[in-house]
Amino acid sequence: MRAIELKGEKLVILDQSLIPREMKYIECEDVECVAEAIENLRVRGAPAIGVTVALALGLTAVKSSNKTKDEVLKELETASERLRKTRPTAVNLFWAIDRVLSAAKRAKNPAESALKEALRIYQETLEADKKISQHGAELIEDGDVILTHCNAGALATAGFGTALGVIKAAHAQGKKIKVFADETRPLLQGARLTAFELVQENIPVTVIVDSAAAFAMKNYCVSKVLVGADRIAANGDTANKIGTYSLAVLAKEHRVPFYVAAPLSTIDMSIKSSAEIPIEFRNRHEIEYFNGKPVVAEGAEILNPAFDVTPGKYISAIITEKGVLRKPYAESIARALGKG
Amino acid sequence: MRAIELKGEKLVILDQSLIPREMKYIECEDVECVAEAIENLRVRGAPAIGVTVALALGLTAVKSSNKTKDEVLKELETASERLRKTRPTAVNLFWAIDRVLSAAKRAKNPAESALKEALRIYQETLEADKKISQHGAELIEDGDVILTHCNAGALATAGFGTALGVIKAAHAQGKKIKVFADETRPLLQGARLTAFELVQENIPVTVIVDSAAAFAMKNYCVSKVLVGADRIAANGDTANKIGTYSLAVLAKEHRVPFYVAAPLSTIDMSIKSSAEIPIEFRNRHEIEYFNGKPVVAEGAEILNPAFDVTPGKYISAIITEKGVLRKPYAESIARALGKG
Repeated sequence: MRAIELKGEKLVILDQSLIPREMKYIECEDVECVAEAIENLRVRGAPAIGVTVALALGLTAVKSSNKTKDEVLKELETASERLRKTRPTAVNLFWAIDRVLSAAKRAKNPAESALKEALRIYQETLEADKKISQHGAELIEDGDVILTHCNAGALATAGFGTALGVIKAAHAQGKKIKVFADETRPLLQGARLTAFELVQENIPVTVIVDSAAAFAMKNYCVSKVLVGADRIAANGDTANKIGTYSLAVLAKEHRVPFYVAAPLSTIDMSIKSSAEIPIEFRNRHEIEYFNGKPVVAEGAEILNPAFDVTPGKYISAIITEKGVLRKPYAESIARALGKG
Repeated sequence: MRAIELKGEKLVILDQSLIPREMKYIECEDVECVAEAIENLRVRGAPAIGVTVALALGLTAVKSSNKTKDEVLKELETASERLRKTRPTAVNLFWAIDRVLSAAKRAKNPAESALKEALRIYQETLEADKKISQHGAELIEDGDVILTHCNAGALATAGFGTALGVIKAAHAQGKKIKVFADETRPLLQGARLTAFELVQENIPVTVIVDSAAAFAMKNYCVSKVLVGADRIAANGDTANKIGTYSLAVLAKEHRVPFYVAAPLSTIDMSIKSSAEIPIEFRNRHEIEYFNGKPVVAEGAEILNPAFDVTPGKYISAIITEKGVLRKPYAESIARALGKG
């Protein structure tokens, strides 16, 4: 199961909005198709979005390989402009675009360089996943009951997964693990995607409504909370799927360690702390309708924030490909990025 | 809009499972019909369930008015047995049955006494609502942003409402109030019923997913959390819709007062503390399907607790018809019930 793949002049995307009901791949031949897929969460998860926009620019490069340097750069710029507008919170999107663009600008053959850089980002993401999983698995104990939110699995990274990668790696080490998956309203990535991935791996998973997380912590011996991230500020403040902040507060109250697993590409050193992280508000229809039928009384306002920010003080550790980072995060993050 | 009404030999129940899409009344001619309505949440909310079972026994009484005392008592016992099995958590159900049964047993004319007692319970519930609303409104300030969960309104009590009654009374006093309503998965009583009631009253209401409550507390100046209750132990521990405990913890972390509004009939002095309160686990289908379509990956377990328990220590005050009770609840509750 691959979330994204570049096949010749097409970018093939597994439409995650249809899982588990349907496994359907869409074949994008242009950037508009990819942008639409990101906007509508056909492909989602910060690392996977990074890989997707990189490959979308790679696709643009493949198609313009016999044009002049200026023409290629202009096409890449136009494509980037469209892709930057898709979603504001996951920093991997902007990071991947910047890397591909600057590789193209530096090169004699910008199309070839853009494609190479896109494939390098893909490869690096896969490798980061594996290292995150190995580092994280050391934190997991035999018998752990792990609560997770949204989906930080293979589908979210185009590789092995971050939070779910850690769980899979610990499971492969023979540790017995049970997982509680928050269903994750409004789009149910937990019920649909996380449950799907864990069932495939034969890891016991129990789906609960998001508001039952505290109940599970109190009555079902949850021993760890483990989530992914969409953007991490220089001080460790972490934006992730709406509901993550709530879990962090509940974990603190129940003395349960709260871990974030994410590649270093999710860290945004230009952002000092949470207040500066842009939060995406999505369409009210995601809450108002379910399978086409209205579930909210007419005349009510609806607020649909897609993310929230968990202050670093609630986070027990951030698991990255460079190891497990601890407080104070300003220092451990700078060190991991080689800027300490 | 009446949630329940006894009309001659029929109990008329507004089917709340269909709101806001449809306003449909069902007419029950026997106890089985009423029991089914309670089990499937066509009528729900602890005080409303109390009134409903009382009126269901009243209906049984009306139909058996020309039988012998023994026959009447036997029919009432049979009906009670069926009704007791419908839902385990809301204590008002057992309290109302016990009151009607013992009134019938004491009386020469048990059918007449059962009916009278049922109507008395209905009347008392209406009066309790009004007093709760008045006492509670004194706690509400002009400009308050109130977060509520599930539905503790007119629909939940057959009267004016408890938590929503307080909000309506404060609104009627001219205080400007904004309400955040958690949608309340899995059955969306917040999105469907609370939003519906508040829109009708012209009180500004914004629906959010349950997991956004912490986000709203942090970023939208939530100044109070106000909920109903299904069963309150002698020490103030309170069972209410799943997610309530989570809100109480979040309110504490954000230094927001957390209020419970409920009639004294919701207090169960036979239960010393939370551990003894029976929690209902409902069918997994409520989480697994939405409008008939599966949303959980096949092979996953699902846990569907309908309620959780909030320890008294998280509750700033319990608003009752006898006034606002404060800690220590063991004492204030006993005093309010005249047992201190």
